[in-house]
Amino acid sequence: MESFAFHNPTKLLFGKGQVSSLKKEIPAYGKRVLLLYGGGSIKKSGLYDKVIGELNEIDAYVVELGGVEPNPRLTTVNQGIALIRENQLDFILAVGGGSVIDAAKAIAAGVPYDGDVWDIVTSKAKAPSSAVPIGTVITIAGTGSEMNGNSVITNWETNTKAFFNSNHVLPRFSILDPELTSTVPRDQTVYGSVDIMAHVFEQYFHASSNAPLQERIGEAILRTVIETAPKLVNDLNNYDYREVMLLNGTLALNGLTGMGVNPDWATHLIEHAVSAVHDIPHGGGIAIIAPHWMEHVAAVRPEKVAQLGVRVFDLDPTGKTDAELASEAIQALRAFWASIGAPAKLSDYGIDDKEIELMTERAMLAEQIGNYVPLTKDDVRTILRKSL
Amino acid sequence: MESFAFHNPTKLLFGKGQVSSLKKEIPAYGKRVLLLYGGGSIKKSGLYDKVIGELNEIDAYVVELGGVEPNPRLTTVNQGIALIRENQLDFILAVGGGSVIDAAKAIAAGVPYDGDVWDIVTSKAKAPSSAVPIGTVITIAGTGSEMNGNSVITNWETNTKAFFNSNHVLPRFSILDPELTSTVPRDQTVYGSVDIMAHVFEQYFHASSNAPLQERIGEAILRTVIETAPKLVNDLNNYDYREVMLLNGTLALNGLTGMGVNPDWATHLIEHAVSAVHDIPHGGGIAIIAPHWMEHVAAVRPEKVAQLGVRVFDLDPTGKTDAELASEAIQALRAFWASIGAPAKLSDYGIDDKEIELMTERAMLAEQIGNYVPLTKDDVRTILRKSL
Repeated sequence: MESFAFHNPTKLLFGKGQVSSLKKEIPAYGKRVLLLYGGGSIKKSGLYDKVIGELNEIDAYVVELGGVEPNPRLTTVNQGIALIRENQLDFILAVGGGSVIDAAKAIAAGVPYDGDVWDIVTSKAKAPSSAVPIGTVITIAGTGSEMNGNSVITNWETNTKAFFNSNHVLPRFSILDPELTSTVPRDQTVYGSVDIMAHVFEQYFHASSNAPLQERIGEAILRTVIETAPKLVNDLNNYDYREVMLLNGTLALNGLTGMGVNPDWATHLIEHAVSAVHDIPHGGGIAIIAPHWMEHVAAVRPEKVAQLGVRVFDLDPTGKTDAELASEAIQALRAFWASIGAPAKLSDYGIDDKEIELMTERAMLAEQIGNYVPLTKDDVRTILRKSL
Repeated sequence: MESFAFHNPTKLLFGKGQVSSLKKEIPAYGKRVLLLYGGGSIKKSGLYDKVIGELNEIDAYVVELGGVEPNPRLTTVNQGIALIRENQLDFILAVGGGSVIDAAKAIAAGVPYDGDVWDIVTSKAKAPSSAVPIGTVITIAGTGSEMNGNSVITNWETNTKAFFNSNHVLPRFSILDPELTSTVPRDQTVYGSVDIMAHVFEQYFHASSNAPLQERIGEAILRTVIETAPKLVNDLNNYDYREVMLLNGTLALNGLTGMGVNPDWATHLIEHAVSAVHDIPHGGGIAIIAPHWMEHVAAVRPEKVAQLGVRVFDLDPTGKTDAELASEAIQALRAFWASIGAPAKLSDYGIDDKEIELMTERAMLAEQIGNYVPLTKDDVRTILRKSL
């Protein structure tokens, strides 16, 4: 393992009806609240009314910012920052999926910063030393944003998706009521399941030694997704399945499986480049790119892919080489994602080879990306071409 | 799952040389420090000098309390409380194993309390609403006390071992340097491994439904112990094995596998009764009692014991009933503990049937104990008799 610091003070409030904890949790941070949400599904579901009811009970002064996009935009972040400054708000309540929470984090870090918040997101500015406190009510399982300090923001002026991480933007509390995720449509449910698995992969394929416990915990999450997602996509209102997937999503990216390992993240970087050029759902992009990335990895270092096959997809290793097992593991992963209805080709989203160079460019944050198997620009271009 | 709140803000600082973080971490809580430690092994190992060096660098005012016992005593806790009050100390640095940290927690909660601290430990007083902040440097893997709010204290006047749990006594930070655990002797290393497994069992055998992820994470910890402990006990100075066992211990009892489930804890209650009457090592007592407890459980509800056998001990379920699998699982557990040199009978510690009634009495905190399979007084007496 690498030396590491782990400090995750987010308070999880998990279970049916936990929205009613808002009136107890918020006052510790102030009563002037920016209420942030997405496309309005929370109004249809009745969640909006419940949240407003809680805020009214504590006589909160509420400023709303709705319409946060699925790939949240810098322009929206800037709007949020302006609203907090103008109205002297002291708390952000993010109600929605990972996009809304990611936007909240960039807003939170941007408020006390003098310059352009994009400098924080792209790590051009110094790391934030303070932020407006955030609380969340999560409505989609998958991103894990409810219990980490990560934020991914898209700048459409430059077709760039960038991310930052700061412990200052860790939600102070997150409300996880599985019932609130029961209205998530089938395709978004699939994307969430894919994203959870990819978060495990990015940390499972690490460049460190001696992390058997972290790997086994990752495998525990993967097996639970593989067991639950197929049942869930055919029974979207099932509370038990929603409950399990919600916890899966939180634990897949809260620092737990990443303790003491140097993670990879190449798949995410490539996908971010794709969805910064073409506005496609993140989980969909991941389902397309990850297997091609894994094939590249298996050609260089097959052993961990083989381990994944044996421990997660129950492959019988008898008489097989790591390369053979790895190839079967990738086949099993593809078959699993196909079985729940995940996309397999960029052309499923109408994307052709026109922007391959721009996407390749955008993925290359450095000369090489990835850690378990570092990728050159040529490698990334090849993975994108195969993904068409 | 049950509804739950999870809030674990302990900062882990894991890796070689992390003791040098003390000078950065402590000043946030004050510089008047109670330095708490055990039998003096930290003086032999040189750790004491390193810690004092760190404290001197920040010009801390240090009052020492050494000699905290393996089953820490109420009398020692009272000494600590008096020292903090007399010297107006504002921070407790606990350097040692779980016993030292448990004592620190009772001291921390006792200082702001007017009455007898034993009332807090036995939950006769209201739950603590504040406590002196604690930091820890852990020297033995096993108890998990470095990342939870649990404390077990023994009152020798009444032969009673009692425990309390409070988020107020969660360590603010814990230093986990695997190298500091490399001088732990073989028997203590075995006890730690047993205790880690028992902590998983207490939460794995829960009385709730629909917790597949928590169970799989428990299995991940168990498999990692089973893989690592036999190598470690034959190679006590191996850094890699110590590293893995240290993280195992922390994650086995930090709230993670207990999310949303109603745990059992009967084995621990019975063992606490044994070691409150006879001063034996906790992990040794657990190794003796747990298999007999599990046999009782298997007779009533074999299915989870069977699952343990298949998923953790790799039993082949083909053509077998749950009862058969459960019986094989318990055999496998016994064989594993015997293989690392854990005791199997109370008579290994010279304990005979003389105090069976007193131990039975002490274990019965209520009419029934345990949740997965509730135990009556007769059940507990039987388990103790079988353990002789």
